[in-house]
This record gives sequence, C-alpha cells and structure tokens, in this order.
Amino acid sequence: VRSLVLHGEGDVRVEDVDDPTPEALTGAVVRITHTAICGSDLHLYHGQNPGFPFRPGHEFVGEVVETGSGVERFKPGDQVLVAGVFGCGRCTPCRVGDVSACRDGGPKIFGVGADLPGGQAEAAAVPHADTTLLRIPDGVTPEQAVLLTDILPTAWYGAELAGVQPGDTVAVIGLGPVGIEAVLCALTMGAARVLAIDPVPERRALAATLGATPIDPTGSGGAAKVAELTDGIGADCVIEAVGLQATIHDALFAVKVGGTVAVVGVNLDLAFPFPMGLAFVRDITFRIGLCPVPRTWPRLVPLVASGRLKPEVVFTHRMSLADGPAAYERFDRREDGVLKVLLTP
Amino acid sequence: VRSLVLHGEGDVRVEDVDDPTPEALTGAVVRITHTAICGSDLHLYHGQNPGFPFRPGHEFVGEVVETGSGVERFKPGDQVLVAGVFGCGRCTPCRVGDVSACRDGGPKIFGVGADLPGGQAEAAAVPHADTTLLRIPDGVTPEQAVLLTDILPTAWYGAELAGVQPGDTVAVIGLGPVGIEAVLCALTMGAARVLAIDPVPERRALAATLGATPIDPTGSGGAAKVAELTDGIGADCVIEAVGLQATIHDALFAVKVGGTVAVVGVNLDLAFPFPMGLAFVRDITFRIGLCPVPRTWPRLVPLVASGRLKPEVVFTHRMSLADGPAAYERFDRREDGVLKVLLTP
Amino acid sequence: VRSLVLHGEGDVRVEDVDDPTPEALTGAVVRITHTAICGSDLHLYHGQNPGFPFRPGHEFVGEVVETGSGVERFKPGDQVLVAGVFGCGRCTPCRVGDVSACRDGGPKIFGVGADLPGGQAEAAAVPHADTTLLRIPDGVTPEQAVLLTDILPTAWYGAELAGVQPGDTVAVIGLGPVGIEAVLCALTMGAARVLAIDPVPERRALAATLGATPIDPTGSGGAAKVAELTDGIGADCVIEAVGLQATIHDALFAVKVGGTVAVVGVNLDLAFPFPMGLAFVRDITFRIGLCPVPRTWPRLVPLVASGRLKPEVVFTHRMSLADGPAAYERFDRREDGVLKVLLTP
Amino acid sequence: VRSLVLHGEGDVRVEDVDDPTPEALTGAVVRITHTAICGSDLHLYHGQNPGFPFRPGHEFVGEVVETGSGVERFKPGDQVLVAGVFGCGRCTPCRVGDVSACRDGGPKIFGVGADLPGGQAEAAAVPHADTTLLRIPDGVTPEQAVLLTDILPTAWYGAELAGVQPGDTVAVIGLGPVGIEAVLCALTMGAARVLAIDPVPERRALAATLGATPIDPTGSGGAAKVAELTDGIGADCVIEAVGLQATIHDALFAVKVGGTVAVVGVNLDLAFPFPMGLAFVRDITFRIGLCPVPRTWPRLVPLVASGRLKPEVVFTHRMSLADGPAAYERFDRREDGVLKVLLTP
Repeated sequence: VRSLVLHGEGDVRVEDVDDPTPEALTGAVVRITHTAICGSDLHLYHGQNPGFPFRPGHEFVGEVVETGSGVERFKPGDQVLVAGVFGCGRCTPCRVGDVSACRDGGPKIFGVGADLPGGQAEAAAVPHADTTLLRIPDGVTPEQAVLLTDILPTAWYGAELAGVQPGDTVAVIGLGPVGIEAVLCALTMGAARVLAIDPVPERRALAATLGATPIDPTGSGGAAKVAELTDGIGADCVIEAVGLQATIHDALFAVKVGGTVAVVGVNLDLAFPFPMGLAFVRDITFRIGLCPVPRTWPRLVPLVASGRLKPEVVFTHRMSLADGPAAYERFDRREDGVLKVLLTP
Repeated sequence: VRSLVLHGEGDVRVEDVDDPTPEALTGAVVRITHTAICGSDLHLYHGQNPGFPFRPGHEFVGEVVETGSGVERFKPGDQVLVAGVFGCGRCTPCRVGDVSACRDGGPKIFGVGADLPGGQAEAAAVPHADTTLLRIPDGVTPEQAVLLTDILPTAWYGAELAGVQPGDTVAVIGLGPVGIEAVLCALTMGAARVLAIDPVPERRALAATLGATPIDPTGSGGAAKVAELTDGIGADCVIEAVGLQATIHDALFAVKVGGTVAVVGVNLDLAFPFPMGLAFVRDITFRIGLCPVPRTWPRLVPLVASGRLKPEVVFTHRMSLADGPAAYERFDRREDGVLKVLLTP
Repeated sequence: VRSLVLHGEGDVRVEDVDDPTPEALTGAVVRITHTAICGSDLHLYHGQNPGFPFRPGHEFVGEVVETGSGVERFKPGDQVLVAGVFGCGRCTPCRVGDVSACRDGGPKIFGVGADLPGGQAEAAAVPHADTTLLRIPDGVTPEQAVLLTDILPTAWYGAELAGVQPGDTVAVIGLGPVGIEAVLCALTMGAARVLAIDPVPERRALAATLGATPIDPTGSGGAAKVAELTDGIGADCVIEAVGLQATIHDALFAVKVGGTVAVVGVNLDLAFPFPMGLAFVRDITFRIGLCPVPRTWPRLVPLVASGRLKPEVVFTHRMSLADGPAAYERFDRREDGVLKVLLTP
Repeated sequence: VRSLVLHGEGDVRVEDVDDPTPEALTGAVVRITHTAICGSDLHLYHGQNPGFPFRPGHEFVGEVVETGSGVERFKPGDQVLVAGVFGCGRCTPCRVGDVSACRDGGPKIFGVGADLPGGQAEAAAVPHADTTLLRIPDGVTPEQAVLLTDILPTAWYGAELAGVQPGDTVAVIGLGPVGIEAVLCALTMGAARVLAIDPVPERRALAATLGATPIDPTGSGGAAKVAELTDGIGADCVIEAVGLQATIHDALFAVKVGGTVAVVGVNLDLAFPFPMGLAFVRDITFRIGLCPVPRTWPRLVPLVASGRLKPEVVFTHRMSLADGPAAYERFDRREDGVLKVLLTP
C-alpha cells in the first residue's frame, strides 16, 4: 500500500510499504478512506521524534478489511473510526476508557515513531481492535469521523477538565484546530459566553461565526481583556490550546478566583516557571493531560450524530494522499489560511 | 392602584386596591410594567385556593418605587424582576438560594391567597427585597425578565433535577409553557436529542422549531415511542411537566435503567400509585420539588443576557391588564393556540 | 457434589447433584469454602420463586477449580469471591460495572430459580468468570469475602444512592444484615451521626456498639424521633433497608427538605401509595434499585483489606452446609438473635 | 487589655493595648478565652510581614462582649469561634462561604499586619460579626473550637481539593499541625489508607496512632515509597502541607496518573519550577489555595460535635498568654516535640 513516510526533517515522501497485517489475535487492518494532518505532526516533521524514518498519522477512518481471530465486535466491511490515543482495553482504567492511565504499557499513539506505523496511508494495522475502533454511526460523515479520532475529543476533554458549566464565561486561548473545536465544545456544554483569544484575525473571525466573542491578545495580553469583559472577575474557566509558556501564563491570569485552567496544548518543560503565588492567592485549579480519546465518545458521538455539534468547520483544505508532501509544506507555512488539512487516499 | 382580584370560581375582576407599602424595613414596592398568567393560576381560578377573594399573580417585573430603610441593595428607579418563589433570605438554605428549604416559615409564593397579594396589578409590595429582587441586567428584555420569575427557573430546575448531561437523550413530557422552556433548557445543557411529547400538534410543532424531536403520545403512549427511538434503551433522563398520574407513569416507563425522572408538574396526591417494582428493577431516581427560583439565576441570567437562551417563544398573547378577565377566560379555554399570556398594566 | 435444594415451601434438603462444569468458554467452576443465607433466600423458601425445585444461594466464595478456554484472568487455584449479581461483562454498562443495566439479558442472580444453580453447595458453575469473579486480596478473610458478594455492596450502594457526605446526619431504617452494614458504610463515608432505627432491641444495641445512635420507632414512628434529634429539620439522607410500605413511608417523612431517600429493601408493589404531595413540597429525591455488585468493589475492597471497614459483625451463626435445613429454619424463625448465618461445606 | 505585640524579628512582647471597640455597625468585640500560635505566625515573627509593630494571632475563641447595632445573629454572652480567614459576608461568593473570592476587598486574615489586630490577646474586634463568628455548639470544647478557626478547616479544604473519596489511598506530605489534621480529615472522608510522610519520627509516630501508615522520606523521597506501597500506581490523591519546592515536587511524583495534588502549604514563588511534562503525561490536577474557612464549617462542625473527628491531638503545649514570648521561642526552635501551642489569656 501507499503511505507517507517521514525520512528526515521536512522530508515527507509517498512510498509503497508492506501491506499491514493484524497485530496479534486482537488486531485488525483498516483500509483508510480519510485521514488528516495534526498540528502535532509538524513537531515530528521538524525532528521532535524518536528517530527517522517512520510513517506518520494518528487521525484516520475507513473500512475493516481483516481481523484477528480474537476480535469479537468488528468484521470486514465495518466502517470505523480509530482512536488516535488508545490502550490495552483490558486493564481497570482502560475498561472505563481512561486509556491515558493504561496499566499495560501506558497510552499509545499511532505514527509518532517506527513502533506503530501511522494512518497517513492507504491502510494500517490497528491493535486491540475491539476497544480501539468505533463503528461510525448513522448521521456521522467520514470527515466528522476523522475529527472524532483526536482533535474533537481533545477539545472536549479540555472543556471537561476546565469544568465548563451552563452559564459560564469560558476563555479559549489559541484558535488553532483544537481551540476552534474547544469553542464549539464549550458552547455545546452551555457556556453563556466564550471569549476566543488569538492574534490571527481569520481565526478570530471563524470563532465569531461560531458564536464566540473574539479577543485579540496583541498588546496587553488576553487576560487583561478578559478582565475588562468580566467586570474584573475573570473567566469562570479557561481552556489553553497552545502549550507555550506565554499562553499558559495568560490562562493563569485570565481565570477568576477559584476557577480552573485546563491545558490541552502540549508543553513538556520540566521546569516551567509557574506563578505559584498567584495560584495560591487566587485559589486556582490547574489541569493538564493527554486526552483519553475513547472515554469522550459516549457523549461526543451522539452530539455529532444528531447534528448538535458540527466539528467539520476546521477543514480548510482537502487534498489527496499523493499530495501529502505538499500538504505538509503548506500546513507548516500556515499559508492560505490553512487550519486543518484532510487527505484522501 | 388597579389590580386583578379573584372573587370566586371563574370570577376575575379589575379593581382599585390600596396602594402597596413596603412590608417591614426590608420590603420594597415595585411598580409593575409586565406580568403574566401562569398555568397554576388557573387552578386558583377554579377554586383550588385557601379562600376568595385575593389578588393573583406571581410573575411580574417593574421598577422599584419605594424601599424600607433596611434594604441595602436596591433603590427607587431600579429595574427589577421578582422571584415568584422566595424565602427569608437569611437562614442557612436561603443564603445559597435554596428558598424551598427556608427554615423561617418555608418558601413563599405571591398571589396564591390573601396573605401575600400578587402582581397582576399596577404595583405590589415585595418582602425581603434584597434577596427577592434581581436587577434586570443589560441584554435581558422585560418579557424575558417575566419568564425569569418562575417558569424558566422551574424548567431549568427540572433539567437540573433530571441531571441532563451533554450528549444525553432527554424526554420532555408535556409541552405547555414550562415544558417548552424545558426543551430549551435541555438543549442549552447539551442534550444531543430532546424528545418532546405532547398530544397537541401546535405544541409539538413549536418544540420542533426549537430543535426537538416531536412525539405524539396518542395511542401507545410516549414511553413506547421513546423506546423505539432509543433502541429499546429509554431516555437518559425525563422531565415531566404536567403532573398527572398518566404522564408521571409515562415518564417512569420512558427512562432507561439507571436514569432519572424529574417532575416539575404539580401533583399533590398523598397516595399516588407508584410502580415501585418497576423502579426497583430499573434502578430509577425519582425527583420532584418546588423550584428555588433565586438559586437558578446565576446560571440562567447570563444565558438569557448573552442571547444563548431565548425563552420568550412561549408568549402567544400580549394583552393589557385591563383585559385580565378576558385573558383568564381565553387561557382557560386554551383557545387560539394560547400558550402563555403577557399582561401589561 | 453436595448442595442444598429447595423442594417446596419450607422444604430444604441436602442432596448430591451433578458436578458443575464451566458454562461456555468464558465460564469457570468454583469449589466453595464459605457461603451464607440471605434474607431474600427466605422469600424463595416461602414460595416466592419461579418454581421448585432449585438450588439456592448467591453469596459464596472459594477456589477456582476449572476454567473455560476463554477465561483470561483466572486459573485453577485462585481464591475468589463471586458477584451475587452480575452481567455479561461486555456491554457498555457492564464495562463500568453497571451490571444492573446489562444490555445482554439484564442482571443475573445465582440461585433464584432452576436456570442458574446457586452456591449453597460444595461447588458451582460461574458464567462470565473474568468479570463475575474477584481475586480475594491480602487482608480480606473468607468471611469478609462472603459479605462482599452481596450484602455489603448492597448497603454501600444504598449509602451511595442516598448521597452520604461527610458531616451528614444519616438515618438507617431497618437493622437486619443489610441495615447493619449500611450503618458501617455511612460511618465510613464520614457521617457525623447515624440514626439507627429498628424495633428489635438487640439490633439497636449492635448498631450502638458500631457508633450509631439507636432509635426505637415503636409508637410514634422513626420519623418523629429523627425530627426531635435534628431540631425539626430531618435527616440529610435516609437508607431504607426493609422494603415494607410502612418503613418506606417512614423514610419519606424522616428526610429533610431537599434530602434523599434510598431504598435497598425489596418492594415490588406496582401501585405503591406514594405521598407525592409530601415529596413535592419537601423537594425529595427518591432512589431504589438492585445493587450492581462489581461496581462497588473498587471502593469497598480496599476498605475491607485495610481494616477500615469490618463487615463481619453481622455473622451471628456459623454452621455446616450439612446443617443447611436447620439453618434455614432457625433463620426463618429469627430465633437466638440470628442476624446472618455462615455455612461451610 | 493585654496583647502580644511583634516589635521586630524575634521580638514578641506582652503589652497593654487599647480596649477594642466594634468596627462599624456590623462588628463585635470578643473577650478571648483560648488562642493558639500558627506555623504561619513564625513567618511573620521572622520578618515576612508588611511592617512591625503589630498584634499577631488569627486563631481565637471566646465570648462576645459587645456588638454593633447592625449585628443580628449574636449578642453579648455568646460563646463563639472566629473565622481566621473571612470576607465581607455579603457579596455573591461570600454568601456561600467562599470568602477567598470575596469581591469586596478580598479575603482578610487577623494579625498579619497593623490593619487588623490579631487575637493573641485578651480581646479583639471582629468585623462582619454575623458571618465571621460561629456559635460554639454543644459537644465542641474550646480547644477544638480554636482548631476550627483555621488549621482544621485548612486541612479539610486540602482533603476536599484533593478529592478524597472513600476507598482511596491518600498521601499526606508533611506532618506538622495541618498535616496531622489532614490525616484525620482523609480518614474521616473514608480513605482506605493514609500514607503519612515526614522525616521527623515523633510526627510519624503520632500519625500512626491515628491510623495512618508512616513513611520516612529520607533518602529516596516519599514518592518512591508511595510507589512501592501502591504496586507502582501512586496515590489516588496527595495533600501537601509544607509548601517547599522539594515537597511539592514529591507530591507531583507521588500521585497516580489522573490523580490530584492539593497544596495547602504556603508557597508564594512567582516562578516555581513546575514539571509540566510530567503533569502532561500523567494527567495531573494541581490545586492550591487559601482556605475559605466558613465554607468548611457545615461539614466539620457536626463531625467534631459528634466526636467523630478529634482534632485536639495536635496540642502538645498549653501555656498562658503572659508566656507568649517563650511560647514563640519554643515553637520556633521546634524543641520538646512541640507541634501546636495553646495560649490562654
């Protein structure tokens, strides 16, 4: 089958690779119909990975074409989406979907190294198929299904960590694909106001069309403007979807006394300069973590299937897998207002 | 001032009554600009009350014109809405808004007897003004404010009692004014689907325009149709907004195993035939109660003010206070598709 | 193997039955070392069952002696306890332990009819072994393990349904084995006071030694005495562990405005005379259901293993399986202060 | 009246000061019968304060001797305890006891500067008496009441922030007075195990007598030993009661994936080196804040009054107010196994 392969920094190629086969008795093979490039793929593209070459991609959906003899819930022909983050499916946390806490090796992600080939390809092997796959229900399009593999769950998880309650004023910092989905999730959970903060005008404009109040943090920063809009009280909760030091700081200053900051942007600093004194006097709850994708499905899937939540607004570009190298380049340069790229094999 | 007065069954008159004065030091007088007739007023109209004559009406808003010397938070000229259900404002439950549990005499309701004259009038005295009144914030119209005095809080409370969570399938039984508001509340809280059940086609049609799935319970009952639409599982939660034996039964049969039924319809039966065996094998949570109006405001008011929740769809008729007798008659006969009547003095 | 067999009303015999074999690939056989008679077994003994003869008993522990080829988590030699209530282990609710909502045939109970032979025997077949069994951890005695199969989980579930919070005043109505365990559970959850209500002096005395305040309901009823002890407010929550109409009514009158009544006594009335008007004006939450046993283990087992919760106080009689007929008779007559009978094969 | 006065670093004197008078109409004066020295007083004693001289002490109880005309709930002769942290009592957060979020000037603490004289004295003025005072209920001793003014609420708040649930394994880091109370609070909330971590043998021994598992962090640190005792999983939640960088780090490494760390030790670093990468991959919730004392009373007071929670174990020394200078010195040197000093005027 054809697959994208990362050979080095900025070096993506389309190549023929061996046909995938089910990993162990509980694995399956999925013929991929739609996949996407994630912001985190750009980090890999720039060399933040365990070693080239490898096959990227953790957002993909398609059709089951082969299953191991131990797979009970799926069979060839099933239309499925694949959890971008998954676990063994059997340990105590995994049984309730908390794959981030998997006790059999921890959570796993497709396409971040050579161990587990990714899904920017025509087909991929999927371990632990019974819990890693989800049948695509009626009412969910393939494009929506792609978003249910990672970024919509991540945004939803951020809103859950932030503790969004009906009537809240929620600040979302960073309006990349995850931030835009977080705006939708916060509104779906009943936020009275979503303050959507990003320096890029096009992104703020998109957030505004979704029902958010756009805020340009340029200059005084987002927190100062959140304070203005909340009589000096601050946001009830903040979802940070960037992961930089400056934006995490902005989040901590934007939240009200007793409020919650949830970070779904990736930050791996081991000595992040945290304003502990601020957090103490303002009684802050701070949460960060990797989304346990399958745990979000029971709430998210019905919302997408019923049409209440329309996550597909993030797709700005639709290209073929064969154009993968160009897609990476364009996404990396953030040209043409690119927000999220869909690839079809 | 002019006021409606109930003199006997079906006998409403417009009369001059004494000008109200603040009750004690903590009371205030409100000049009423908008008021409404509630479904429960019809019960009073038909004789279910402690004794004629009295002045009805517990849904009203207007302008503060006089305050007792102990009132700290309001002054003449303030535009306010009035809690239809209120308490002493000082006991432990009242401090958190749980006026239903007021330990100083229990919850109080305007206009259900001669003790506490109601607000279908040009003015009314309001006890415990500091906690019974709420300043009408920017972005909330007087018509919306009238709905914040009782029926929207009641519907919201029903949705809270029912434990509506994002992604849920929620059944609402009875699409009178409270049921229609309950549809809006459940959607605002993130319901994936609201199954709106009522035998009256116009009411179902209104619910459908709001985003609900209309269900006609005629024939097999609502529960059977809920089962069909949920693969036999039942609704995650049910809000019953009628109060009849048949509809409460329908609610208990419509909910899933482990689900919750919340009743905001009034039922005062002391030996209601409750299907305990069903509740046992289906692990049901059953909740019923009088809405503690002020406790709902911190979440509801921002939602109305920001335009996320538009409760005014229930007003089908707008009449003058002078036409009060005709308004009662029309509402009572349910003619002209009347759902909710606004009266302006 | 030897087993008790119920042949008719009041007719229990010890008989040889066929050796059990694993049911399907996922089943196992347990050689039973300790079992018990439950209050609900007396209902079966008195003829409330689908038809004689059958082998009773749903509380048993022992050693795995055989497993089907599909069992992954257990092997012969494992010391295990068996869920008295269990499900398929695979459907969505079962995956989180909510076996009461099992979508593959509903919850199942051993020994309530001929379909599923019970565990008052030397051995029994256990379906769905991977989720129905639990390895007995260090620090848990076999007698404690027997209580973890049903009555301690049921009591815990009652306390959870009742929403016991630290500092609460909790009323427990009925001090049979489940009620006594409920006293322990409420105290473990941090109740400031447990008001333990039963007309039998020995049971109240036992509750008092555990830390409860004993209340004799004789005469004015438990609710009146609860009111006296709570300045007229009522209990924060009530756990009803009898199931009779009178005691459920007492529970509803004993709870505070806004409080919760949880019924874990069995009541299968389809037209129970429920005081709806009381529930409405007092804003009551009413909950009843069959305990999803495995869901309670993650919290209960560590508490028993660490010695914080000592459930074995309920065993008043220890007899051999061969004396089963006498044990039933004694338990049925409630003689010798019998509360709970342990049987050892 | 006589009062301790801090005149400079390490310079505590007993002096005559002006008799206090009620601050404004809503204030009261309390004649103090029992007071205590808090660990945080030592920071003030060492110069971490807004400026000498001032009168220290925020833990005190006694008798109301004078009230402003606006005080409604207290009168001379009432035995009361005083919130060490309090607010205006009237703003929205204060109405539910969240004084940390007081919108009228923020939370206030007695005796941390010259603005608000403290209670290590024979009498003190108490602002906002209706919400700052609490009548000492039957069953609560004066010594227990002193602990209800600050350190027991702080420990309880830590356990609440940490989200202690029945059956949890809870680590408490630092067994000073707050840490010891946290051990008691976690056990009261139903912890199956409390792992009590401190390098001082006497403190570990005290924790062990209360039911905790003592852990000496010397050498490999507490987190490594917590891992050993939890099969490598980590504690369900951690309460940090020291506030140092090393102990906060130990807390972050001791908690399980998906667990919560609550810090009630004071740390005012504005660039604390936070291991963000660890928190991300381990999905950690981190909470820190100043205890809103009055909010904890509704749960704590019944527990102390009923004898379920016995906080007075922390008092190792009882001295007279006149010996205040010596008491500070002894407490500062941590000699004689001093944990907490009670002072009586």
